[in-house]
Amino acid sequence: MSALDDLLTCLRFPSVSTDSRHNADTRACADWLVAKLTSMGLTTSLHETPGHPVIVAKNKHIAGRRTVLLYGHYDVQPAEPFAEWKSPPFEPTIRDGVIFCRGATDNKGQLIAHVSGLAETLAKHGDLPVNLTILFEGEEEIGSPNLKPFLEAHRQQLACDVVAISDTGMVGPGIGTFTYGLRGIACMELKVHGPSIDLHSGIFGGAVANPATIAARLAASLHDDQGRVLIPGFYDDVKPLASWERSAWAELGDGDAETLSLTGVPALFGEPEFTERERRWARPTAEVNGIGGGYQGEGSKTVIPREAFVKLSFRLVPDQNPEQILDLATAYLLSKAPASVRLEIKRGHTGQAYLMDPQGPLGKAAQRALTKTFGGKIALIREGGSIPIVQAFKDVLKADTLLLGLALPDCQAHAPNENFPIANLEAGIRLNQALLAELGA
Amino acid sequence: MSALDDLLTCLRFPSVSTDSRHNADTRACADWLVAKLTSMGLTTSLHETPGHPVIVAKNKHIAGRRTVLLYGHYDVQPAEPFAEWKSPPFEPTIRDGVIFCRGATDNKGQLIAHVSGLAETLAKHGDLPVNLTILFEGEEEIGSPNLKPFLEAHRQQLACDVVAISDTGMVGPGIGTFTYGLRGIACMELKVHGPSIDLHSGIFGGAVANPATIAARLAASLHDDQGRVLIPGFYDDVKPLASWERSAWAELGDGDAETLSLTGVPALFGEPEFTERERRWARPTAEVNGIGGGYQGEGSKTVIPREAFVKLSFRLVPDQNPEQILDLATAYLLSKAPASVRLEIKRGHTGQAYLMDPQGPLGKAAQRALTKTFGGKIALIREGGSIPIVQAFKDVLKADTLLLGLALPDCQAHAPNENFPIANLEAGIRLNQALLAELGA
Repeated sequence: MSALDDLLTCLRFPSVSTDSRHNADTRACADWLVAKLTSMGLTTSLHETPGHPVIVAKNKHIAGRRTVLLYGHYDVQPAEPFAEWKSPPFEPTIRDGVIFCRGATDNKGQLIAHVSGLAETLAKHGDLPVNLTILFEGEEEIGSPNLKPFLEAHRQQLACDVVAISDTGMVGPGIGTFTYGLRGIACMELKVHGPSIDLHSGIFGGAVANPATIAARLAASLHDDQGRVLIPGFYDDVKPLASWERSAWAELGDGDAETLSLTGVPALFGEPEFTERERRWARPTAEVNGIGGGYQGEGSKTVIPREAFVKLSFRLVPDQNPEQILDLATAYLLSKAPASVRLEIKRGHTGQAYLMDPQGPLGKAAQRALTKTFGGKIALIREGGSIPIVQAFKDVLKADTLLLGLALPDCQAHAPNENFPIANLEAGIRLNQALLAELGA
Repeated sequence: MSALDDLLTCLRFPSVSTDSRHNADTRACADWLVAKLTSMGLTTSLHETPGHPVIVAKNKHIAGRRTVLLYGHYDVQPAEPFAEWKSPPFEPTIRDGVIFCRGATDNKGQLIAHVSGLAETLAKHGDLPVNLTILFEGEEEIGSPNLKPFLEAHRQQLACDVVAISDTGMVGPGIGTFTYGLRGIACMELKVHGPSIDLHSGIFGGAVANPATIAARLAASLHDDQGRVLIPGFYDDVKPLASWERSAWAELGDGDAETLSLTGVPALFGEPEFTERERRWARPTAEVNGIGGGYQGEGSKTVIPREAFVKLSFRLVPDQNPEQILDLATAYLLSKAPASVRLEIKRGHTGQAYLMDPQGPLGKAAQRALTKTFGGKIALIREGGSIPIVQAFKDVLKADTLLLGLALPDCQAHAPNENFPIANLEAGIRLNQALLAELGA
């Protein structure tokens, strides 16, 4: 199957966008995609940005047809920790019909499913039922810093009636899932600077503040014991959950049991007044994604480290404003840091949360395509992840986005042993064809 | 000068005892010392232990003379962070009469000063004024796990009237300093285990406890805002400072200004009811020596890490019991950890705090040797560091220890750019000779 060969080829590029050592690999992945799309008969162009390039490809646009923008990303998360992969992270390995590789689900498997669906249709009919514009970027995993400017600079060329993306999840194998909401994100990094050098903790301990301790105290100041965020004003703009959502989600089965089994934690945790799904899909969070300082090696080294860091991200929900959340967090953390250290705060990438009406005409077309592909009842959900570009499509192109994900709950996106079943690749090909047929009707 | 050559040779062995990759280097350093002591005419032996070897060397012991045990250690702290060294950490480099190298002060510079003092005396007189037993170990930086059993197994061979050690500090250049007390130590490491893999913080954030956050909360639970330790019972056995000590230390000049300038911190920190020196020399502490979890690389990676760690050490004072402190800390931390994570606690090395009477006959002899070497008024101090073996000498050999340090306040022990002036090497040679003369009189 040439779709599978294409996916395996695409997965072999270690296109880790956050790590500059992989810049050449990321570029090579983009070049391969350009060649592939060109070979399918699409008019394809590679656009330089200050970071990784953007790819645009189109069929011949004909007046009177609906224009669909298909978005995907060819960059992937870092593969660390390497030691926990059962097969090499950038050599796709198939076990029991499942492809294991960094990017298998997020997003190369889903992207290649669409590309392969288009390739089949083009080979058979010489055209597509819609005006199609492909937009693939290489910076989704670092917050798409250059895509919004690109949209703004190419409004005419990218004008469309609707955006379609497969970069979200299915509630279970074979259950067509339509995602009508996403959390936003806001990242920041704290650095706590103390002494000018690492100090002997015997000689100086007790008289100077320990940056690792202060970093820990700042991280600890973010939550109460039950996981509620303590930053003043953090929840002010949170839009309450609609009651139809709460009941629809309650019908999806035992979320607690599923999350316990997927994660392996001894017990769940979080705001007691919300269900597990509500906490993941519709409540904002503050997470420590990385913390470090002082001796990291074997055994002990009795130092007071000169500095320590905390990498933070906030998951946001409608109608929180990411930049305002970073302002509130900055003010709060500065107020908590003692004068005996210097606190440096670096703002990272941000993205708005997203919410669309699943019962509009486009939402209904997407649900029909899902029914045609998967059969049975379609799940209507929000998701906890962030696709900041969805809000950018809304802002710049004035287009809603249809989120038709193919990621299974145990796909291990962002983690070791990321995987994607070949069955989902095949379903994605049919979904692409059904969706364009519905949107072209 | 052959003393300097010997020191440079000794420094070139990267004898990092905590890091098993350096086991061969540590052994090579021990072998070199054995050859050196043998060449001086001392009867020298290398003793295997479960870890790094112990070296014993003696002149001919003659009945009726005082027996002095000279202790030192040939192992050193790790050199990390390497990037902050101005010259290679294991290639001694002399700038303006100061030797820069890991171990320059702690303890190779001071150890070689004594060895060189002995070599000169032996070359000139063929004997020493006392019965001398040298005891050099290679595990001081990891808490001397095998030395106390060694003492117990060799009580007869190591029997002595007094122990002398140069592994402590001088209050300033040229000021003879006698240390009559040391803090003890107790180390432990916490590991917080959460999900079985790193999780996507968008998909799961809000529903599971974040091990990095919990590690931070546990570290933060150790102190109040002013640095007092919150573990119940922690201060119960702390012996109050004597009033003569508080006044003697107050006369040593402005400790705040010196520590600010040595450390480069924006402000001092710690228990407000004690002076800076009292906090460093006579108050117990809890320090985070290392903390880590989640993404450590460039940029951001939005994970909930599967685990996080905190490396802790407690500096202890008379009459705290190190094992009991670890018990109290363990119980406290277990009580603070939520059921949504699994907490693993690993106990590390411990050492009792030490206190001797500086005005007894041996203390007075040491002070005379210091006056002969340095002139001027001798400083009587305690120190914040830990030399657990001092308590072991007391327990097993029933001998007090004379602490005659040659480390300057800016020697950067345990830190990058550790250094030792050649002038202190020369003073150490004279101090060795004056001390043995006083003790032999």
